[in-house]
Amino acid sequence: MSRQTPVFEKVALIGLGLLGSSLSHAMRRAGLAKQIVAAARTRATIDTGLHLGLIDEGHLAAADAVAGADLVILCVPVSACAAIARQIAPALSPGAIVSDVGSTKASVIADMTPHLPDHVHFIPGHPIAGTEHSGPESGFAELFDGRWCILTPPPGSDRQAIDKLRRFWQACGSSVEVMEPQHHDLVVAITSHLPHLIAYNIVGTAADLEDVRKAEVIKYSAGGFRDFTRIAASDPVMWRDVFLNNRQAVLEMLGRFNEDLSLLQRAIRDGDGDRLQSFFTRTRAIRRGIIDAHQDTGVADFGRHMLPQDEAAQGSADAERQAAAKRDKET
Amino acid sequence: MSRQTPVFEKVALIGLGLLGSSLSHAMRRAGLAKQIVAAARTRATIDTGLHLGLIDEGHLAAADAVAGADLVILCVPVSACAAIARQIAPALSPGAIVSDVGSTKASVIADMTPHLPDHVHFIPGHPIAGTEHSGPESGFAELFDGRWCILTPPPGSDRQAIDKLRRFWQACGSSVEVMEPQHHDLVVAITSHLPHLIAYNIVGTAADLEDVRKAEVIKYSAGGFRDFTRIAASDPVMWRDVFLNNRQAVLEMLGRFNEDLSLLQRAIRDGDGDRLQSFFTRTRAIRRGIIDAHQDTGVADFGRHMLPQDEAAQGSADAERQAAAKRDKET
Repeated sequence: MSRQTPVFEKVALIGLGLLGSSLSHAMRRAGLAKQIVAAARTRATIDTGLHLGLIDEGHLAAADAVAGADLVILCVPVSACAAIARQIAPALSPGAIVSDVGSTKASVIADMTPHLPDHVHFIPGHPIAGTEHSGPESGFAELFDGRWCILTPPPGSDRQAIDKLRRFWQACGSSVEVMEPQHHDLVVAITSHLPHLIAYNIVGTAADLEDVRKAEVIKYSAGGFRDFTRIAASDPVMWRDVFLNNRQAVLEMLGRFNEDLSLLQRAIRDGDGDRLQSFFTRTRAIRRGIIDAHQDTGVADFGRHMLPQDEAAQGSADAERQAAAKRDKET
Repeated sequence: MSRQTPVFEKVALIGLGLLGSSLSHAMRRAGLAKQIVAAARTRATIDTGLHLGLIDEGHLAAADAVAGADLVILCVPVSACAAIARQIAPALSPGAIVSDVGSTKASVIADMTPHLPDHVHFIPGHPIAGTEHSGPESGFAELFDGRWCILTPPPGSDRQAIDKLRRFWQACGSSVEVMEPQHHDLVVAITSHLPHLIAYNIVGTAADLEDVRKAEVIKYSAGGFRDFTRIAASDPVMWRDVFLNNRQAVLEMLGRFNEDLSLLQRAIRDGDGDRLQSFFTRTRAIRRGIIDAHQDTGVADFGRHMLPQDEAAQGSADAERQAAAKRDKET
């Protein structure tokens, strides 16, 4: 297998949100594309992409973006993949690699495969990386550094195409793993989908309380709640689609979660301190594993990283937040 | 009310973990105590406290530490408060302020009040601040900066003593709120206790899976799970005590959480995208409130704050982690 960094003639990003814009930054950083174009649903997003130098060309129709591209990456909520595959199919160049960044893989394969022509290499992917921000201004080149990207090529996929896409993600900073789509969906159901569901749920529960005012929930959020709100601030449409498209695995994990929670609930009701303590002790080992695997730092997190660098970032985060609020209102 | 920063002759900290050691740092920073002494259960903790300059004197018996102190603060898991109150009662100086930092307030009041003499001012407190680390090495002066400290003085408490303790916490960097203990317990049940319970639970669920290996859970934790493991790495004994001592409020909040989760579960099962999206959209508003209230930054969190400063901190965090692992083994 070649270790050479691949250079694509023309990369087409379909969608220019957090993932699409970060991919553009990462490609620019590593010199992976001679030309980067994007398709977006609004002229405003295209203008932002051009203004930020993320793209050389923008289109409202996905088919216009993919013409002549040797790499096409769908960076859209997973429910949109079927329609986009249908739209771009006639315009795809022979030999092009078609991939995506969706959080569910079996559904994306089922949705896209029927539409794609035989003369392209369809290799679905999922970079396990993200922040709670969204939109074209939220991307940055480092998003994928040190993270994992999972590829789920269908049986019989071209090995050279897989290898080229692997080296592409490596050049973007990621490690790459190849996996069966069904197993991918199970793994992310517990490492990503269930945590998001739980975070959204507890924030919702807090918002609905009558005997604790919302102002109090906000004021005293530093006790743990705050971290859940960060996760629960993620893009609503993307997450709606995740739960619609990984239903079975999520319900399976949720069932186990509920069983375990019933046991903890019973231990609290019974005042069973030994059971509580032993449960709370054993979860520490997993944390240590994550730090040792460099998927987080061991630096204590107390919710404030207002170092000088962060204050500049805070300014752009505020702007992004206002833009997001505006988008929420529009949808 | 006086705005003057109070200076205590002798402050006795009972317990020298994250909270006790951070209080020492904060007191040193603001010059709040002429002398700081501590009681700890082990000679090793006392030696660390002396070595780090946290304390001027250390004792194994709490009663020895409080002799002559005009401020006594219990910084121990809440189940230990009753026994400590009984031990220190005969040694307390007339006019001393006795407080604590426990996460539950009704139980602490019920446990301590019967033992304390009438000639001291008992004013329970709870700083809403913490990290996932524990032990005397984990403290730092900034822990309370910009956070809230809740005081729950019993009816008829001396106003001057309340005011003095308020100014003490303000000088440690906190804002101060006075609240009924029952209401405090309800507020923290949702902002702190339930989030911790949920985090512990999901990490436990992940650890028990058979079809997803623990190595995979760790490797792909950047999708959201990682943040739960941080919370679930908090001190097991402290959290056991929280759930034993705020049982009713936690079970009440857990009941509501479960009801809400059943609705989300049903929406997923039914493929009800509209309900999911509207639920996920409305939780964003709470996040914005927390950032606007400066209880977190809007800077995107992607799990790596490895700025140069952090790398130094990582070193000490690693050391702390090893010490914690050793402690876990010992208990």
